[in-house]
Amino acid sequence: MVVVHHLENSQSIRVLWLLEELGVDYQIKHYKRNVKTSLAPANFKSLHIIGTSPCITDGELVLPETNAILDHIMDKYVDNQLRPTAESAQRVRYLYWFHAAQGSFMPLLLDALIFKRMVSKSPFFLKPIMKFVVGKVEQAYLKPRLTNMLSHIESELSKSTWFSGNQFTAADIVMGYCMDVAAVRVGMDDKYPYAQSFLKRMRERPAFKQAMKKNGDFKPFSE
Amino acid sequence: MVVVHHLENSQSIRVLWLLEELGVDYQIKHYKRNVKTSLAPANFKSLHIIGTSPCITDGELVLPETNAILDHIMDKYVDNQLRPTAESAQRVRYLYWFHAAQGSFMPLLLDALIFKRMVSKSPFFLKPIMKFVVGKVEQAYLKPRLTNMLSHIESELSKSTWFSGNQFTAADIVMGYCMDVAAVRVGMDDKYPYAQSFLKRMRERPAFKQAMKKNGDFKPFSE
Repeated sequence: MVVVHHLENSQSIRVLWLLEELGVDYQIKHYKRNVKTSLAPANFKSLHIIGTSPCITDGELVLPETNAILDHIMDKYVDNQLRPTAESAQRVRYLYWFHAAQGSFMPLLLDALIFKRMVSKSPFFLKPIMKFVVGKVEQAYLKPRLTNMLSHIESELSKSTWFSGNQFTAADIVMGYCMDVAAVRVGMDDKYPYAQSFLKRMRERPAFKQAMKKNGDFKPFSE
Repeated sequence: MVVVHHLENSQSIRVLWLLEELGVDYQIKHYKRNVKTSLAPANFKSLHIIGTSPCITDGELVLPETNAILDHIMDKYVDNQLRPTAESAQRVRYLYWFHAAQGSFMPLLLDALIFKRMVSKSPFFLKPIMKFVVGKVEQAYLKPRLTNMLSHIESELSKSTWFSGNQFTAADIVMGYCMDVAAVRVGMDDKYPYAQSFLKRMRERPAFKQAMKKNGDFKPFSE
């Protein structure tokens, strides 16, 4: 049986969500973040040398890395709807969104947080300088890439109910978490009505609600 | 037939490498970076709203995102050695490294470059301050994560010839490129003999040499 080593308010929410969508049995071991630093506790970090969340165990196997975990679980509990096969009409869009979530969108959202903290955690007399330098990097690199990503999301969600078509898949799980974080961290205003309505649909899914219940209220870090 | 829209000296090298490993026919359209800014030219950026490299076209399909492209090509030219199936003994390690390359390692290597440039591109009178602030982020976040990743790589490569076992797979293609970048950008010294010997083995593969011949000499950006 899969044991989810669940670090609260982390990307691990997606692992719970997938398992709830599959409706299979699993165990959770809960780990609280340090109240002051928000960091994972030592007993979480010692699970695997990589030390990042999510992390599962499955018998002898200790496995970090979101998409590796999702693919491993989908290998174990074969489900061709959550992971469309090579023959499926939804396949290419599935591949794009499943990989783009972790390979492009999540890293941009993480950088958005790092850049904010570089300013907010500077001593007060350095804040204006940091704001200036960080602002330049944001203008040249981060913001154009985030804007392209959000525009692409909006355009794709105008074509179908879910990211890869009208069938819900694991791409919606990886992207859904990113969108939840993006809404808080970089904003997602009225320019993105399809993205907003995706978030609403996602939050209404019983499996998502169940995952949230197990995590406790989720509020992504915004600064 | 797949057309690789090849931006020189970019993650697109991996797409050429995979196609050469498969030994299938494909076309290349070459795109040069701007000599001053290193940025992709406008006709590359206009291929897809996302605008990042790699990008392929395949009939009507325009597809960015490294791992989506690799999976799409492996869907098209089925190869169970390059992409071990769910039944394979190499499967879990394959999944981990295939996803960790793009979901964890590459974003860290990109941040290493961004942080270096935040210092090197600052006006001279701000350099000491930037060095101090960026140094703190590097110490608290980037360096521990990179060290964990390099240690994990070293430990895994001590167990087998390639990343997921003794059979070469697409995980070696995605990780191999990261390792090439890591060697230049963050250093990979005598502490990592297995990683060094992986790089040597990788560079001796005919398909890798052929991809490099098509790219032209590859020197990852180090600053």
